Amino acid sequence: MIDYRSDNTGRAAPEILEALVRANHNTALGYGADEWTAALQQRFSELFETVVRVFPVATGTAANALSLAALGPSWGIVYCSEAAHINTSEANAAGFFGGGIKLAPVAGEHGRIGAARLAEALASIGPGQLHRGQPAAVNLTQATDLGTVYSIAEIGAVAEVAKARGLRLHMDGARFANAVARLGCSPAEATWRAGIDIMSFGATKNGGALCDAIVVFAPELADGLAVQLRRAGQVWSKMRFASAQLIAYVEHGLWLEMARASNAVAARIAAGLNVLPGARLLAPVEANEIFLEMPAGVMNALEADGFQFYRRSATLARFVCRFDVTDAETDALVASLRRHCALPAKAAE
Amino acid sequence: MIDYRSDNTGRAAPEILEALVRANHNTALGYGADEWTAALQQRFSELFETVVRVFPVATGTAANALSLAALGPSWGIVYCSEAAHINTSEANAAGFFGGGIKLAPVAGEHGRIGAARLAEALASIGPGQLHRGQPAAVNLTQATDLGTVYSIAEIGAVAEVAKARGLRLHMDGARFANAVARLGCSPAEATWRAGIDIMSFGATKNGGALCDAIVVFAPELADGLAVQLRRAGQVWSKMRFASAQLIAYVEHGLWLEMARASNAVAARIAAGLNVLPGARLLAPVEANEIFLEMPAGVMNALEADGFQFYRRSATLARFVCRFDVTDAETDALVASLRRHCALPAKAAE
Amino acid sequence: MIDYRSDNTGRAAPEILEALVRANHNTALGYGADEWTAALQQRFSELFETVVRVFPVATGTAANALSLAALGPSWGIVYCSEAAHINTSEANAAGFFGGGIKLAPVAGEHGRIGAARLAEALASIGPGQLHRGQPAAVNLTQATDLGTVYSIAEIGAVAEVAKARGLRLHMDGARFANAVARLGCSPAEATWRAGIDIMSFGATKNGGALCDAIVVFAPELADGLAVQLRRAGQVWSKMRFASAQLIAYVEHGLWLEMARASNAVAARIAAGLNVLPGARLLAPVEANEIFLEMPAGVMNALEADGFQFYRRSATLARFVCRFDVTDAETDALVASLRRHCALPAKAAE
Amino acid sequence: MIDYRSDNTGRAAPEILEALVRANHNTALGYGADEWTAALQQRFSELFETVVRVFPVATGTAANALSLAALGPSWGIVYCSEAAHINTSEANAAGFFGGGIKLAPVAGEHGRIGAARLAEALASIGPGQLHRGQPAAVNLTQATDLGTVYSIAEIGAVAEVAKARGLRLHMDGARFANAVARLGCSPAEATWRAGIDIMSFGATKNGGALCDAIVVFAPELADGLAVQLRRAGQVWSKMRFASAQLIAYVEHGLWLEMARASNAVAARIAAGLNVLPGARLLAPVEANEIFLEMPAGVMNALEADGFQFYRRSATLARFVCRFDVTDAETDALVASLRRHCALPAKAAE
Repeated sequence: MIDYRSDNTGRAAPEILEALVRANHNTALGYGADEWTAALQQRFSELFETVVRVFPVATGTAANALSLAALGPSWGIVYCSEAAHINTSEANAAGFFGGGIKLAPVAGEHGRIGAARLAEALASIGPGQLHRGQPAAVNLTQATDLGTVYSIAEIGAVAEVAKARGLRLHMDGARFANAVARLGCSPAEATWRAGIDIMSFGATKNGGALCDAIVVFAPELADGLAVQLRRAGQVWSKMRFASAQLIAYVEHGLWLEMARASNAVAARIAAGLNVLPGARLLAPVEANEIFLEMPAGVMNALEADGFQFYRRSATLARFVCRFDVTDAETDALVASLRRHCALPAKAAE
Repeated sequence: MIDYRSDNTGRAAPEILEALVRANHNTALGYGADEWTAALQQRFSELFETVVRVFPVATGTAANALSLAALGPSWGIVYCSEAAHINTSEANAAGFFGGGIKLAPVAGEHGRIGAARLAEALASIGPGQLHRGQPAAVNLTQATDLGTVYSIAEIGAVAEVAKARGLRLHMDGARFANAVARLGCSPAEATWRAGIDIMSFGATKNGGALCDAIVVFAPELADGLAVQLRRAGQVWSKMRFASAQLIAYVEHGLWLEMARASNAVAARIAAGLNVLPGARLLAPVEANEIFLEMPAGVMNALEADGFQFYRRSATLARFVCRFDVTDAETDALVASLRRHCALPAKAAE
Repeated sequence: MIDYRSDNTGRAAPEILEALVRANHNTALGYGADEWTAALQQRFSELFETVVRVFPVATGTAANALSLAALGPSWGIVYCSEAAHINTSEANAAGFFGGGIKLAPVAGEHGRIGAARLAEALASIGPGQLHRGQPAAVNLTQATDLGTVYSIAEIGAVAEVAKARGLRLHMDGARFANAVARLGCSPAEATWRAGIDIMSFGATKNGGALCDAIVVFAPELADGLAVQLRRAGQVWSKMRFASAQLIAYVEHGLWLEMARASNAVAARIAAGLNVLPGARLLAPVEANEIFLEMPAGVMNALEADGFQFYRRSATLARFVCRFDVTDAETDALVASLRRHCALPAKAAE
Repeated sequence: MIDYRSDNTGRAAPEILEALVRANHNTALGYGADEWTAALQQRFSELFETVVRVFPVATGTAANALSLAALGPSWGIVYCSEAAHINTSEANAAGFFGGGIKLAPVAGEHGRIGAARLAEALASIGPGQLHRGQPAAVNLTQATDLGTVYSIAEIGAVAEVAKARGLRLHMDGARFANAVARLGCSPAEATWRAGIDIMSFGATKNGGALCDAIVVFAPELADGLAVQLRRAGQVWSKMRFASAQLIAYVEHGLWLEMARASNAVAARIAAGLNVLPGARLLAPVEANEIFLEMPAGVMNALEADGFQFYRRSATLARFVCRFDVTDAETDALVASLRRHCALPAKAAE
């Protein structure tokens, strides 16, 4: 079996687990008052070229929901892409942690939120109109949930519309490493310099193990968030074991190295799909995910060949590439796809 | 420095981290649909001699608050000891996750909830009286927050009062291992056989690293809790790394071995304190915590001797014993205490 | 000025205020333990031909949100029409009172929720899929937010899909009187006999003053709701003044008499619009609301003629008919519309 | 029967209902955009000698809980008297609307919160200590829940402690009229000039009918509160009928006239109780409530004489005086009390 189901089915980078094990000496104060967590603040502030506050959390759902709750108020409207993970896959955690925050999907291309459509949505709620709640924040998924990547300019365009109305920006960076690897820019350019106030900094999907993080760029958000995290049961008492993972994740550029690897797998598959008659990419392949429309019969044939992947609908397959997929595994998928998709769709069914 | 500050300042058992590292091979489905999490269900069902559902979570606060929320309704009153961790130390997480649940402290001896006092509190809210919310659940901390341990009979007495009114029982077992080690009973006797419906199963304080668990005895609670946990950001996508830790924690009796070790440290210190004129135990030492009333001057002297511990008030010190405290460290504390406490309190100040 | 802005801009029926004033004698126990509230239970149980529990509340938003919260759980998904008042106009009160309930709009014709589209939406969430929350309830607005009325068969079709999945049904009856008047059926046929579990029983929009009500058909929902209402600040201590209004509202068929009157105004206007070249009805006129697409220039002209109404968009006007609109006011609007709409739209601008 | 059960068992002042009825002419915009609500803002701003925002709400519970929620954050601790209505009688509405706000009872004399005890409670939570939530606000009940009245100096003393820590102050003025009548000061002196940021302005208990109000002194709280109220279902669409009641309540000093009347009844009873051997006042009678400790046998005897009142415990009776209690009813209670209490307690039982 060759697994393209998700990036969370994969292994953790050995460097990360080794760092966790290395942290197991001496005693250290609990709840983040340890030297590893202090070092994490320092390391991420260097990485982002500004003083940031970093809060390790157990999951991306926690990172997203608690970030959005910090951008409140509880009657706030959070604009997001229709495809956004917070909208489709987190059991309305944002609505729960935010005390009634409402998500408002905004259309856009290939998983992005469209700046013009956002402006329209905002214009539809005039000042003093209370009956729909109040616009509060914008959520951008980077890379997007359809495997594309916002350019810096695209983030800036959304930010401009949002800031003009006083809204805050949250980036769901579950695959932030893949986006930065694709853009070739600095983490700072991709975030606070483009207007992001707070982000979910993903590690799990890119070779991490048991933690992601919230990175706070707008300093006034951090103190309240710290209490909220404690109340949310997201502050490990033995925090050093989480902080050590996150330090190792970014040390020596490991995170970008892994992201480049998984992006490369996806790019190699996409290149191999070029002009296949029986399949169509739903969106450009810009990170480590491939959304491919194809007949159900082709999906069946791929599974029979030993490939694992998710069916998003009867005719849409998703392939997610992990950092440790081998060239052989990559080429095997391409070969199988070419074999089955070269046939006319009808015949394949 | 010799550290008696908390059990969460300590190291993890090497066996637990080794198990985590061993789980890092192959791919595995996310969010608990992996073989380690399946094995965890099996292993804990054996341990508790009944079919249980086990949900790994990041922290004890999450375990407590989500357990209590599962016992709802949101207008429920949860009775607990005045000293209960949920009441004093979790930033009202139960009130948050429970959507407005109110904690009602009930007096009792040495950190316990008194059955008779519970009965009185329940009697004060008659049927149909809606203005105070409705009695919903009872929370017992085992071992208690003052280092004592409920006997099976004491749990049963509280359960009897609670069940007579239709209330559910939650056990905060952050130090459950210490209690079981003390009682010498089976985990089943200490929990569901005594009336417990759901429990927070602590590991972190007793040599764990990054997870505790919720163990569900009342099967009807589990499915809803599973969604709530997902929404709460408490379901790791790479759950295998959590489940592997918990399996290792109970494998070959490791958990009880560590608890016996930390209990023994506390007992040895307590024995050494016998008839000291300048110090007084706040409660019997039955687990791994020692609450000692002494003059502030003695505390200063202990710190000068290199001991770390928490001051709960100007005249109350808490010493927590970890599984890996050495005999030498134990005896050093006793010696220092004997030296400083033997002096009249006045002189020590 | 002739006011077609909303049914809540109107007067209350004198009978209702007279009943309120009549209730102002003697003392009476608070919070609903009075004789008026007891009579209300009796009167509504007769009206609905089954034993119901009736809870007066201050507003329709409270009625809707607390009804849906009663159908929980807090991670529930509530399906509703895209045009539903709970989705467009209540500041996410359902999400707030429900502790994170998520509204899922379902497409349908003319403000209705389509049974087939509901079935599709439900099919997209398989058993055990936790990441989107769990289907919990369906909300139907009757009359709909586009001025149409569900037939009994249409309610039954939605109910059948919902009940097959174990979902509960809530009817937002802010304009229930208008719907019953249109259908010519009994209140029972329009509600619990068609599968409704709980309803918001509107009075304010139809000649009421300061209260609506929740009517509970599924008896197991009532006791919890009673506590929730108390906590929500929706239980007047001098409840008799609310209950007296609601009794007067249904006494001697007043509610249906007023609804028939406002429906008749709308029908008379709709009839007068027949084959006007410059205007188009967005939906059939089946209750007391008229949604009319017309050029902005026509709207300007109507306003210049002294008519008040809401612009839902640049080319969509809404006219709401109250029970006390006179024939002269009705005919004046028709005449004005005919005059301005008969002109080609271009010229009118 | 002579009713001393509660001030909410009583009638409304005829002037208030007449104003409500008078408001029933013409059409008026909904949700507070009407002329009565505009006049209410003006009238209360004059009354309080500063620009205030006034929001009519259905109940005192709504006023209290939404005021406290406005003082947030959701992880805030609200300090209140042990006897405070928000703590004993509102089903934890503050915890619900505040998204997890925790109430922390503070001891004090006769239903007051003690400034020194408040200072101690605040001192026990050091800066950076997150595990207990964060101090956010103080709630004062005026008149208190034991029938006493804070002096201006006492309010100032509490405010000084609170403001030194950055806390906000909420006054639960369910019986504010009684307090102002007692103090003989201006409404401004009793509130914002003494440090109050927001208040629940009660009317129902003092001759009102169906509404109380929130009065906002700290202007930055008002806009958010307006949305929160809408979402809470506390904004009547026909708001004029509520605003008209509140205007009538304060017009020509009606509110103080009624409060003086009910205070006088209580004072006359208290005077009549002087040196009775068998009864003891729990607290000085400073408003319209009397808490009287007496043997159960005396309570039985009073009931046999036709008096209605609440038993707060086996030996504590509460008598509440309404504005329209007659001198004959007053003297009858005194006579009955004197008759039964003059006997030795034993004999009465």
